[in-house]
Amino acid sequence: MAEEKLPTRAENFAEWYNQLVLKAELADYAPVRGCMVVRPYGWALWENITAWLDKEFKATGHVNATFPTLIPMSFFEKEKEHVEGFSPELAVVTHGGGEELEEPLVVRPTSETIIGYMYSKWVKSWRDLPILIVQWGSVLRWELRTKLFLRTAEFYWHEGHTAHATSEEAKEEMYRILDIYERFCFEQAAVPVFKGTKSETERFAGAQITTSIEAMMWDKRALQSGTSHYFGTNFAKAFEIQYLDKSNTLQFCETTSWAISSRIIGAIIMVHSDDQGLVLPPRIAPIQVVIVPIYKNEAEKAAVMEVADRTFSELKAAGIRLKMDDREEVTPGFKYNDWEMRGVPLRIEIGPKDVEKGSVALARRDKPGREGKTFVPQTNIAATVSAMLDTIQAALLEKALAFRDANIHDPKDYEELKQVVQDGWALSYWCESKACETKVKDDTRATTRNIPFNQPEHSGTCIVCGAPAKRKVYFAKSY
Amino acid sequence: MAEEKLPTRAENFAEWYNQLVLKAELADYAPVRGCMVVRPYGWALWENITAWLDKEFKATGHVNATFPTLIPMSFFEKEKEHVEGFSPELAVVTHGGGEELEEPLVVRPTSETIIGYMYSKWVKSWRDLPILIVQWGSVLRWELRTKLFLRTAEFYWHEGHTAHATSEEAKEEMYRILDIYERFCFEQAAVPVFKGTKSETERFAGAQITTSIEAMMWDKRALQSGTSHYFGTNFAKAFEIQYLDKSNTLQFCETTSWAISSRIIGAIIMVHSDDQGLVLPPRIAPIQVVIVPIYKNEAEKAAVMEVADRTFSELKAAGIRLKMDDREEVTPGFKYNDWEMRGVPLRIEIGPKDVEKGSVALARRDKPGREGKTFVPQTNIAATVSAMLDTIQAALLEKALAFRDANIHDPKDYEELKQVVQDGWALSYWCESKACETKVKDDTRATTRNIPFNQPEHSGTCIVCGAPAKRKVYFAKSY
Repeated sequence: MAEEKLPTRAENFAEWYNQLVLKAELADYAPVRGCMVVRPYGWALWENITAWLDKEFKATGHVNATFPTLIPMSFFEKEKEHVEGFSPELAVVTHGGGEELEEPLVVRPTSETIIGYMYSKWVKSWRDLPILIVQWGSVLRWELRTKLFLRTAEFYWHEGHTAHATSEEAKEEMYRILDIYERFCFEQAAVPVFKGTKSETERFAGAQITTSIEAMMWDKRALQSGTSHYFGTNFAKAFEIQYLDKSNTLQFCETTSWAISSRIIGAIIMVHSDDQGLVLPPRIAPIQVVIVPIYKNEAEKAAVMEVADRTFSELKAAGIRLKMDDREEVTPGFKYNDWEMRGVPLRIEIGPKDVEKGSVALARRDKPGREGKTFVPQTNIAATVSAMLDTIQAALLEKALAFRDANIHDPKDYEELKQVVQDGWALSYWCESKACETKVKDDTRATTRNIPFNQPEHSGTCIVCGAPAKRKVYFAKSY
Repeated sequence: MAEEKLPTRAENFAEWYNQLVLKAELADYAPVRGCMVVRPYGWALWENITAWLDKEFKATGHVNATFPTLIPMSFFEKEKEHVEGFSPELAVVTHGGGEELEEPLVVRPTSETIIGYMYSKWVKSWRDLPILIVQWGSVLRWELRTKLFLRTAEFYWHEGHTAHATSEEAKEEMYRILDIYERFCFEQAAVPVFKGTKSETERFAGAQITTSIEAMMWDKRALQSGTSHYFGTNFAKAFEIQYLDKSNTLQFCETTSWAISSRIIGAIIMVHSDDQGLVLPPRIAPIQVVIVPIYKNEAEKAAVMEVADRTFSELKAAGIRLKMDDREEVTPGFKYNDWEMRGVPLRIEIGPKDVEKGSVALARRDKPGREGKTFVPQTNIAATVSAMLDTIQAALLEKALAFRDANIHDPKDYEELKQVVQDGWALSYWCESKACETKVKDDTRATTRNIPFNQPEHSGTCIVCGAPAKRKVYFAKSY
C-alpha cells in the first residue's frame, strides 16, 4: 500500500523514479547484484506490451523460437567487434554438475552468435529464406550502475534475428521493424519517438547500420527505446550462414537483429507520470478502470453496491480491464491515493448521491483534481467509459508531443548548443565526424542520439566545426 | 523437408522418437551440452499449451511475475533436503564483468529459494495472503543423459509458487492445480493421466507431499507429466516467510509449488504419433488443417485454386489455424508425407474432380489411408471441418485411453508383477515401505509412479511382502 508520498520530480527526479517503481509495485530489488524482480503489476504491464508486439510480428510473417540461455565462450570470439563490445559485460559459467567445464559458457547478453550458428545449419537454399525468428526472454549484461527497468543486469526483451538473400531485403526488414516500434510507441505507449540512424560510435557491436527510436523523458534526457540493426554479411561470414542461390552459387546471407526491452517501461514512467505516482496509457494499463464505492452505513452500502456491481458487469462485458475496490478497512481517500500511485487511468466513484441522480463520477488520472472530474449518466456507461479511455490515451500523447517539441532547439552556433543541451535537445547539422561528436560529449556530456530519417531539404554546416554537413542529428544527454 | 522415412516404433522406439522430433522440426540439438533449440513449429505448439494453462491460472486468481535467472549459492543451503536434491545438478557462475565473484551464482534449477526470499519481504499480514504467483521461463539442471524435450539441461516451464495462511488452503491449492493439469491433459493434449501421490522416495526435494499426473507412453513406460507440491512450513521457516494473523500473532506461511514443463511435448509425441511421424491433437496443433490443391495444367489450376482459396477464407474466418500448401516445386504426394510428418490433424485435398462435384476430400492424420478419407460438400465447409476436428480430438483420447487401460495389470503375486512391468504397468497393493519399493526397483527397474487418488474400497496385502496395505500404487518403468 502506498502509505507515503513520493518526493516531487523537481526535488529529486532520480529518487522520485526509484520510489515510484517500488511503491506502485512494478518491480523490486533482487538479492542478486544489479537484478530486479518484476512484480505481478509490472509483469502484467509487460504482458500487454509484448502481446501487441507479438501480434504485429506474427502478422508480418515472423515466428517465435527459443535458443539456449548459455552460449559457448568461443562463439563470441568469432565476430571481432561483437566480442569487443560484449566481453566486459559477460557472466561466465565455469562449473556444471560439480565439475569444471572444459569450455566456459556465457549467460547470453544477446543471441546473434548462437542463432547464427543454428542458421548456418538450417539455411541451405534460397528456398529457406527469409528466416524470420523472434525470441522472447531475458539476457544478462554485467552492468555497473543499475536502475530498475532502465538498466538492470538481467533484463527482459524480444530479440528478432532474420536472414535474407539480399541486402535490400535485409534493410527493408530493419526499417519494417522500426516502423512497428514507432507505431507501438505512438499508438500504445503514447510515447512520441524519433526514428533515425545511429552514428558509427553509437552502433551496436558488429552492425553495419543501427537504427533507433529515441524518446524524451520528463527531465529532457533522451532514452533509446528500441533498436533495429543491419549486419550486412558480418555475422553470416563469422558463422558461415550460406545459401545456394537460384543459379546454384553459394552466397552469404544478409542478417538483421532488433529489440525492445523492459527498459520501455522506464520510458513510459518517465514520460507520463507525475508527483502523485504512475500514469499509464489506457491501452497498456493492466487495470484501466477502478470502481470505488462510497457509503457510510449499511443502507447506503446496499444501494451503492447495486449500482457499483451493475457498472462493473457492464464494463467487464465490454472488455474493459477493471477492478472493484470494495475494501472495508480503508477510506475512499486512501483508495484514491492508492490507485493514483498505480496509475490506473480512470476512477469511477459511486456514492449515495450518484444513486439518487442516476450518475457516476469519472476521475481522470492524467488530470488530477476538479479539472479531470465529470459526472455521467449510469445508462450507457460502457460506451461513455470507452470513449473516455480513448480521450485519455490521446491526451497523453498530445501532452508528451507538446512537451517534447517545446524542448527541442535549433541553436544558432556551438555556444548556444552547449547551453540548450543542458536542459533540452538540439537538432543541428553535423559533419558526421567522430572528432566533432567527441568534442560535444566532452564539452557537454550530450551525445548524438540519432540522425532522424526526416531531414530538411537542404544541407548546411556542422554546428561544431563549420564544415559542410548533409544531415541534422539530435544531440542530448541520455539514459 | 521430410525426405527420409523414420525407423518404425517397433524397430527402435528411441531412435524413432529422436528422428521424429528433428524431422518434424520441433527441436534441434544445441551446441551446448544437453541443451536444445525449440524450433518455430515446436515453440508454436508450446505457445498453444501455455496459452491454455495461463488462462486457467489467471481464472483461478494467479498472477505472473519474474524473478532473476541467477540465484546466490547460499540460498540453496537454507533448506537441507533442497540443497541435497539440487547440488549435483547446478551450473555455477563464478565470474562476472571480468572478475571473480565473491559469492558464486547458480543458474536457477527451480526458484523456491529466491521466491521464498522475496515473499519474506512482501508478506507481512494475513491481508497479504494468499500470494499466488506463476513464473514462465526456463530452468537448468546439469543432466547427464539427455533426450529432446524429455530431459534436457535447460527446459521450459511455468513454476507456480504460492503462500497461504493455513495448511488446508495450501493443500487445496496443490489439488486445485493438479486438477487443472489433469484437465489440460485430457481435454487439450488427449493424454489420459492418473492423479496421485508420490512415494517418499519420489518426492520433490524439500516437499512434504508431492502429487503428480502420470501418463503411459506407446512403449508402455510411464512419464511423469506434471507435479504439484505441498511444503508445509519447510520453506517458510528456511526463508522466514511470516505473517501476523488476525489475533496479531506471528505465524509461518504454508507454501506450495507446481509445474508442467516442455517435457509434456515428449508425452504428446509418444502417446499419439505413428510410424509416419507426428500426430497432434487438433486443440493444440499449430496448424490444424492443410489444404493441398491438385492440378496438372493451368486450366485445372485456375479452377482448383478458386475453390481452394474460398475454402481457405471460410476456414480462416471460422478461426481455424490453417495453411495453404501451394508450393509448385514438389508433388502432392511429397506434400502429404511432409504434413503427415508434422502431424497436421486434417488434410484437405482439392482436385479437378472435386471442383466438378462440388466436394473436397478430407484426410485424417490419425487414420492414414482410405479409412480416414471422406468426401464432403464444399458448402458449409467450416462447420464440417470444425466437427471433424472435434471428432479427431475425441478419437485420439479414446484410443489412448483404450491402450492405457489394456496395459495396466493386476498381478496376483510378486512373480507375476515382475513379468507384467516388463511390458506394462501394475496396479497393486503396497505396504508403503521403502524396502519393498527398493526391492521392486532392484528386481525389475520399475518404480512406484504414484498412489492414485482413486482407490478400491477395501485394503489388501502388499504384493511384495504380504504385509497389510491400505492403498494400491502404480509400478512401472519410467522416463
